[in-house]
Amino acid sequence: MRRVLASNDALAAQQLEELDRNHVLGVNIMSGPGAGKTSLVERTVEALRDRYRIHVIEGDIQGDLDARRVAAHGVEVTQINTQGACHLDGLMMASVFPGIDLAAVDLLLIENVGNLVCPAEFRLPAHHNVTVISTPEGSDKPAKYPLMFSKSDVVLVNKIDLLPYVDFDIDELVSSVHRLSPGLPVLRLSARTGDGVEQWVGWLEARLAERREST
Amino acid sequence: MRRVLASNDALAAQQLEELDRNHVLGVNIMSGPGAGKTSLVERTVEALRDRYRIHVIEGDIQGDLDARRVAAHGVEVTQINTQGACHLDGLMMASVFPGIDLAAVDLLLIENVGNLVCPAEFRLPAHHNVTVISTPEGSDKPAKYPLMFSKSDVVLVNKIDLLPYVDFDIDELVSSVHRLSPGLPVLRLSARTGDGVEQWVGWLEARLAERREST
Repeated sequence: MRRVLASNDALAAQQLEELDRNHVLGVNIMSGPGAGKTSLVERTVEALRDRYRIHVIEGDIQGDLDARRVAAHGVEVTQINTQGACHLDGLMMASVFPGIDLAAVDLLLIENVGNLVCPAEFRLPAHHNVTVISTPEGSDKPAKYPLMFSKSDVVLVNKIDLLPYVDFDIDELVSSVHRLSPGLPVLRLSARTGDGVEQWVGWLEARLAERREST
Repeated sequence: MRRVLASNDALAAQQLEELDRNHVLGVNIMSGPGAGKTSLVERTVEALRDRYRIHVIEGDIQGDLDARRVAAHGVEVTQINTQGACHLDGLMMASVFPGIDLAAVDLLLIENVGNLVCPAEFRLPAHHNVTVISTPEGSDKPAKYPLMFSKSDVVLVNKIDLLPYVDFDIDELVSSVHRLSPGLPVLRLSARTGDGVEQWVGWLEARLAERREST
């Protein structure tokens, strides 16, 4: 298993260099099933597609439901079906990379398989990891699934429109995240209503700007 | 991987025989993170503890948050920490089985790791698999995570108290489950409010009665 992870890391590092050569920002979005990753990608594409060239990679065990939803917003989408596997990895990315014209991309959004465990173990060609947690899942999740939160550069608390109807303690969530990773940004939003999405888009634009300056 | 699964299946089959020798009904409860498995176990224990001797096995990557919640209801609980693994398996069960007095148990409830993918691949000492899906996760989940649903003997739709606030099409969910497994029972409930829990408890009591008759 350690050997599999090491060879995956090496492959992902090469792919990241390819992104760097093409001045592409890679972002890996992870969460449990149904936390709202696809809705978030849709909102992000709507907000940024006029200013940045976006390519989305959709990771799903099977089917192309999410890829169709995202493609309807007028951006290029590549579907990866993992055929039962619980995460994306470097080998799967290698199979689709040649089909993507990276020179014509500013932002590569990767929507991982819905799973709060396995995706955190497999590095992808991404400069930043994003974990989405939705309020109905409960504020105990960072304590129970620590690896994913500790490997993230930002945590998005989605479905804040449901806060009045669920038992979710935002202060517990934030302290629990900060126990794993002190100071990690935790942004609150509802991909459904759009509330708070501008903060996340602002975070992403700041990363895109850093990238432009560094290349 | 196939070899790992085959040896796990053999081990789980032996453990299931051990349950049978002791007239224990084993039930494996699976879902994504935060779908409400622990609340469901708590409600189930409350409803049945006066009539059946219940032992609960709690599977978590780390920590004992859920085991404490369940133990507060006055039943025996065994905690398994998977140390990062995304599912329970026969080897982990083998490590705790000797510590459980199966002769003093009628119902063994196993709460798997919160994950809609991996747990479905590893057979456990259980006569029935239960999949819990909560309404905020969306009705597209059976189409996207088919293995878990097709390996289940009953599907529980939890958090129906949130139906007015989320986009969840119960008819789509039911037809999507039935495309994978025609006629599979789909029960609706809210472990939080208690609404509909009696149907689930009734289903479980019918299985306990079948078990008594067969042994």
